[in-house]
Amino acid sequence: MPPDFALDDLAVGQRFESATYTVDADEIKAFAARYDPQPFHLDEAAGGASLFGGLVASGWHTAAITMRLMVEGGLPIAGGLIGAGAEIAWPNPTRPGDTLRVQCEVLSVQPSRSRPDRGIVTLRSETRTQRDVVVQTLVCRIVVMRRAG
Amino acid sequence: MPPDFALDDLAVGQRFESATYTVDADEIKAFAARYDPQPFHLDEAAGGASLFGGLVASGWHTAAITMRLMVEGGLPIAGGLIGAGAEIAWPNPTRPGDTLRVQCEVLSVQPSRSRPDRGIVTLRSETRTQRDVVVQTLVCRIVVMRRAG
Repeated sequence: MPPDFALDDLAVGQRFESATYTVDADEIKAFAARYDPQPFHLDEAAGGASLFGGLVASGWHTAAITMRLMVEGGLPIAGGLIGAGAEIAWPNPTRPGDTLRVQCEVLSVQPSRSRPDRGIVTLRSETRTQRDVVVQTLVCRIVVMRRAG
Repeated sequence: MPPDFALDDLAVGQRFESATYTVDADEIKAFAARYDPQPFHLDEAAGGASLFGGLVASGWHTAAITMRLMVEGGLPIAGGLIGAGAEIAWPNPTRPGDTLRVQCEVLSVQPSRSRPDRGIVTLRSETRTQRDVVVQTLVCRIVVMRRAG
């Protein structure tokens, strides 16, 4: 695991890259059965008949995989990734067999005025497949602590 | 299940309300172990020592439960819920034993200029607990088909 970054260590333009995660049809269907039970996420034939032209993952599944890749080293923030909010988009769907990776870039670093021990960092992430298809973009604001002392 | 709405049936200010979903500690930990393995989502003691003061669900888990509630009747759109993007915020965390429900309001209805068979509907949803604590707000844009003919 890379060293964890505090607010003081972050600067606009800094970039991070995650490991990879491969998702298969069984996982796509299992996530969808529990959280997004729509035919094009549950069944190859229904996906083929939809505008997606095949089985596709729920966008929330792509978001969850992206989070895992960030938590497991793709975005090494001391104290963890605690998000207040985000803008998310899914320009293309994740498909069975896709191997995802996440690239993050720091957009802004703002020390808190009211709480001198922390700040808000805005990041933009892109989640891409092995063929460089962008399946998710995310702009998120996370709370990051300063180094003690 | 309520009847499904097409673009022609939707108007600004229209509201929908979902059924409910109760989430327990085991489900919070299982989701987190797979998709957001941070201590405050995995362990009561670690949650208690965090700024959350107890075990809390991943925001992406709250998002996934919200999607299920919408898909299962909370947002009855003909052809399914296909989202291009969204703005999401988590003003408070979901905690073990919380019973969530989702209220949606139509913010805008825009027929497509290039594709006369469909349009884009913008919705705002709030996900609340049994004590009316707002755990998620979501503004999303979804593709909605017009009635045939």
